[in-house]
Amino acid sequence: MVTDLDASDPLAQFQQRFLIPDGIVYMNGNSLGPLTRDAQLRMDKVVNDEWGRELIRGWNSAGWYELPWRVGDKIGQLAGAAPGETVVCDSTSVNLFKVVAAAFLMQEGRNTIVTEAGNFPTDLYMLDGLKRFVGDECNIDIHARADVVSSINSKTAVVVLTHVHYVSAAIFPMAEITARAHEAGALVVWDLSHSIGAIQADLNDSEVDFAVGCGYKHLNGGPGAPGFIYAAKRHHATMQQPLSGWFGHARPFEFSDEFIPAENIRRMLSGTTGVLGASALEAGVDVMLEADAAAMQEKRVRLSGLFQELVTELCVDFDLQLASPEDAADRGAHISYRHEHGYAIMQNLIARGVIGDFRAPDYMRFGFSPLFMRYADIRAAVEVLQDILTTKSYEKAEYQALNAVT
Amino acid sequence: MVTDLDASDPLAQFQQRFLIPDGIVYMNGNSLGPLTRDAQLRMDKVVNDEWGRELIRGWNSAGWYELPWRVGDKIGQLAGAAPGETVVCDSTSVNLFKVVAAAFLMQEGRNTIVTEAGNFPTDLYMLDGLKRFVGDECNIDIHARADVVSSINSKTAVVVLTHVHYVSAAIFPMAEITARAHEAGALVVWDLSHSIGAIQADLNDSEVDFAVGCGYKHLNGGPGAPGFIYAAKRHHATMQQPLSGWFGHARPFEFSDEFIPAENIRRMLSGTTGVLGASALEAGVDVMLEADAAAMQEKRVRLSGLFQELVTELCVDFDLQLASPEDAADRGAHISYRHEHGYAIMQNLIARGVIGDFRAPDYMRFGFSPLFMRYADIRAAVEVLQDILTTKSYEKAEYQALNAVT
Repeated sequence: MVTDLDASDPLAQFQQRFLIPDGIVYMNGNSLGPLTRDAQLRMDKVVNDEWGRELIRGWNSAGWYELPWRVGDKIGQLAGAAPGETVVCDSTSVNLFKVVAAAFLMQEGRNTIVTEAGNFPTDLYMLDGLKRFVGDECNIDIHARADVVSSINSKTAVVVLTHVHYVSAAIFPMAEITARAHEAGALVVWDLSHSIGAIQADLNDSEVDFAVGCGYKHLNGGPGAPGFIYAAKRHHATMQQPLSGWFGHARPFEFSDEFIPAENIRRMLSGTTGVLGASALEAGVDVMLEADAAAMQEKRVRLSGLFQELVTELCVDFDLQLASPEDAADRGAHISYRHEHGYAIMQNLIARGVIGDFRAPDYMRFGFSPLFMRYADIRAAVEVLQDILTTKSYEKAEYQALNAVT
Repeated sequence: MVTDLDASDPLAQFQQRFLIPDGIVYMNGNSLGPLTRDAQLRMDKVVNDEWGRELIRGWNSAGWYELPWRVGDKIGQLAGAAPGETVVCDSTSVNLFKVVAAAFLMQEGRNTIVTEAGNFPTDLYMLDGLKRFVGDECNIDIHARADVVSSINSKTAVVVLTHVHYVSAAIFPMAEITARAHEAGALVVWDLSHSIGAIQADLNDSEVDFAVGCGYKHLNGGPGAPGFIYAAKRHHATMQQPLSGWFGHARPFEFSDEFIPAENIRRMLSGTTGVLGASALEAGVDVMLEADAAAMQEKRVRLSGLFQELVTELCVDFDLQLASPEDAADRGAHISYRHEHGYAIMQNLIARGVIGDFRAPDYMRFGFSPLFMRYADIRAAVEVLQDILTTKSYEKAEYQALNAVT
């Protein structure tokens, strides 16, 4: 059955584009997407042909200057944004600060930012930094997931939520919450880090105000790839963000003392573009754009459902607790299980070539990437998990300091 | 004589480390340092061996996690900082925001930030963003270069200056101004973008509070390389910066909701490290650390002096105006000349393989990099300049939109 699924997989030809080492089942594209042949070739080109031969001229001749909005528009295509609404720049953390600050400044008379307890920590930390900086005029209102929506009220300036939860992979209903926020007069900022390239995010159709996201997970942009910012066109003329660097200036090469923001999405840029990172990201995104979006959605749900089904079948006796929505269609592109020995089990899995990851205190995460994973990989992974649980080989694993990176 | 200088150059062996294309005299290391063999090899390694084979494990096995402070400490060595005072992260613009905000917050009761008119624009723009954000409690006090020091007073919270001016290459006396600021109770932030890797910056000896700088100029870190932040150890416990992302957390992998800043320089970090950019930067810095600092200083002054001498000798009749200090020892690692047709002349020079750059309205900049330039290059460059001026070939050059990047 698993063999049949692979034989009829319409996305099978994409597997050869990814350079996964032999013997590895890579279930961590939700933390760091793997190297593609395209990125490999692109990095060779940007280093040797562009930096090496074009030198400073590369800003024009190799198109470095356009990278933020060229790659941004490609990501925008994956997220249901119109051209001119998305730029690549900085880290997701820094970008979140920029858009939340911009949204907050647009909402005079409202002083509260609503977010979720247990949101990805850096999002909470950046809001904390914003508050520390703005002072008592800014109130960060953190609620349990179930209470977030009902806590949006007439004092809410901005709602800051993550589309797909980094542990559970639960999906917030973006359109519905955005509509609810707008009814209350609030603006929304969505963090798409775990959804971009994994599940559909219809930014324009959902009337989303601002969004940010991560380049190094499902976009396969390379370790620490730059993030991106989306801002709906209707906000471009009024939005102002505090990190107003020269790449966000209307005419940066006039070198004037006065800051005049670009009239479009470019005002979300700050400093000089990191060309190596943005170039690798473009190569990753280009591969995503070649694939049929509906086929990716379908395969993601089937991979995720198959994993769950096999775990239920083969690992039923071992106290694994599902920490994700029950139905694969309600999850992003990963699944989490809790287990008392989760850390050691994951270390064992990794040692045996099944690479997922661990999140404190006891979550094991397994990611599903329709472009490079086979159904047979799913079966192989669960069989290794079953063996580890059956033999209790994890008891021998040493606990080491937690050092993986989401 | 030029041949003798090259024959006795103690740094001559470094030239082979740089991959400058044949026929190019590269006088723009002050905008974008050239590719080294070391960076070429390192990028091949980080892409193929680390990202490709280690995948997520690279954060530990390939040392990605330590990049910010490992590379930071190496840059600190070049700048007279103690270990543990420097981190690599983000862009120079974003880093400037972080340190100025941190310094400003430490100075309760003082509301003014003093800086120079004509400072590198992004520095002024970031201060503008900070002010727009903080509001009327923050006053940006911009003075002509000659009046900066005398404008420091009891209301001054922070003095923000660039060590080597991006157009004139004039050097601010760092120790003297820092002492003056401290006497008035102000803190200092120095932008080392045009000095790091080019001229000596004794951060500890000068008792500098904070500094930032650029990785893609004289450090040869690659296009848009990350910048760095220095903070004197005495400020680590009290400094707080608003872009408090998870990489600045004391224990990022506990994934707690509450932000607890790292107890050291790492609290200046924000989001996930851009591994590709930071790795290329490390390769560039490693080459600098191999070279003798005194020999580099001496050769920089001699290259710069020779260029000036030859321009005076060969180009005396063509209305070139020196826009830099008269004495080479008083300049950073570039020199600027003004000319009515500066833009077209520079286009001509570049077309003939002499790559400098142009800054509006009429400045031609020529950079001097002791590790990859020969004295013979200097003579060759001035001879091409002389020919262009004599034949007026620049009159044929088309004016194009300004698009080069500092």
